[in-house]
Amino acid sequence: MSIVEHENSMMLIAGQPGVRGLTGDRGDPGGKGERGSPGECAVAPKSAFSAKLSESRTSPLVVGDAVRFDKIILNEQGDYNPETGRFTCRVPGVYYFTVHATVYRSSLQFDLIKNGHTMASYFQIFGNWSKPASLSGGTLAHLIPGDQVWVQMALGEYTGFYSSPKTDSTFTGFLVYSDWKNSAVFA
Amino acid sequence: MSIVEHENSMMLIAGQPGVRGLTGDRGDPGGKGERGSPGECAVAPKSAFSAKLSESRTSPLVVGDAVRFDKIILNEQGDYNPETGRFTCRVPGVYYFTVHATVYRSSLQFDLIKNGHTMASYFQIFGNWSKPASLSGGTLAHLIPGDQVWVQMALGEYTGFYSSPKTDSTFTGFLVYSDWKNSAVFA
Amino acid sequence: MSIVEHENSMMLIAGQPGVRGLTGDRGDPGGKGERGSPGECAVAPKSAFSAKLSESRTSPLVVGDAVRFDKIILNEQGDYNPETGRFTCRVPGVYYFTVHATVYRSSLQFDLIKNGHTMASYFQIFGNWSKPASLSGGTLAHLIPGDQVWVQMALGEYTGFYSSPKTDSTFTGFLVYSDWKNSAVFA
Repeated sequence: MSIVEHENSMMLIAGQPGVRGLTGDRGDPGGKGERGSPGECAVAPKSAFSAKLSESRTSPLVVGDAVRFDKIILNEQGDYNPETGRFTCRVPGVYYFTVHATVYRSSLQFDLIKNGHTMASYFQIFGNWSKPASLSGGTLAHLIPGDQVWVQMALGEYTGFYSSPKTDSTFTGFLVYSDWKNSAVFA
Repeated sequence: MSIVEHENSMMLIAGQPGVRGLTGDRGDPGGKGERGSPGECAVAPKSAFSAKLSESRTSPLVVGDAVRFDKIILNEQGDYNPETGRFTCRVPGVYYFTVHATVYRSSLQFDLIKNGHTMASYFQIFGNWSKPASLSGGTLAHLIPGDQVWVQMALGEYTGFYSSPKTDSTFTGFLVYSDWKNSAVFA
Repeated sequence: MSIVEHENSMMLIAGQPGVRGLTGDRGDPGGKGERGSPGECAVAPKSAFSAKLSESRTSPLVVGDAVRFDKIILNEQGDYNPETGRFTCRVPGVYYFTVHATVYRSSLQFDLIKNGHTMASYFQIFGNWSKPASLSGGTLAHLIPGDQVWVQMALGEYTGFYSSPKTDSTFTGFLVYSDWKNSAVFA
């Protein structure tokens, strides 16, 4: 309270200060967050191999077991095992498998096998000509991880898989599409 | 207005309170919202089938009509119709089609047909041997939705498509790449 | 300080204004940003071709040079050159190459060649029958830009590639997967 002198010797006292002003308004809401980043670009999963019979492998072919295409042409993911002749699925999805065989010394029958069950079978006569004939086969298969695919002969008298410097027997497989949906692979 | 007693019996009178203070400043803006979640990952479009002739289908093959590979090995998208033997394109793009046929009882000639027009043709003699021979063929084709692809024999005397428990005749097709660009498929 | 007139001629003075109010509270955080846009669908890199021998090309086939499959079925990226018979890699990655040949007038031996080195070889006898036989082969290959792949015959007496209105010899190749990782192609 302030006291001030005034004319007529009267004491005049100033009133109390006014009350504190009102609190300011609440600030505006913050700006909206940024738009999320675009979905990352999935790198397609990969699986592919090609292998051939080496010449030395031609002779001791065993009916009822996987044919061991032991000479790797391509096997970047290592899904094919040249020791066993078997492809083991890692990426679930649909694969194409194909065999291009040279047939010599006897006719040839083989099956494309998935986990012990025949998917498709192929036969080519060999007529005791002096030159090789050929046999190709192939199919798609839907695999899940751990499934195995291989080539196998079923009939003892028809084991004419052959390989030489000028004609091969090859086994190829590759992933056509994977089952993976929103789980991308960022390699 | 408040009145207060003071020394010398003088009446001291306080003034009115001051006016209310000014309103405070506006608060700071809120923080920015969270960043949105990332967009979804694109899934590549898919189309693939493999089918084989069943044994019972082998006999009544008709020249000039689609060969009905009636036993489905794989047909996840249903783009191949085993009743008609025809693949109908849904996803525009480039497809690979291949046939691995067993040839028996007569020679075999077949065409890979797109909408009634021959894309590629294949022939294999059958020499009246006691065992089957084989014939494979295949080509890429660019298709738009509604296009149809099938296998058809053109020559009456060469209808040797054959199937038995140990040798098949198979028809396979799959999408190699689609024409779709920035229109992802979220399966 | 304001001075005001009062009863008994006294002067009353109002108090000082109150202090300024406090700053308002900070605003609430903004709303969350929108979900990001879908990942742009990476357009997979593309490379594919199919070509066949035209009938007129059948005769003057030269051993030791690329076979010129001169009639284009599909060659959208132009990576195959029908003048030279050679595919030249532009997109690094793994490719599948396959040949479906008609064998007539003589036996047939051919190699799938990459940069002058044989990847795989195939042979089919032709027994002087009155009708064509067939020979198919194929393999995967990892290519880098500039690599070339073609079909070549190695043995002078086995040049039986043949083509007629009812049976073709075709050469097909397509990219199975590219080496490109997070560098998508937005065509």
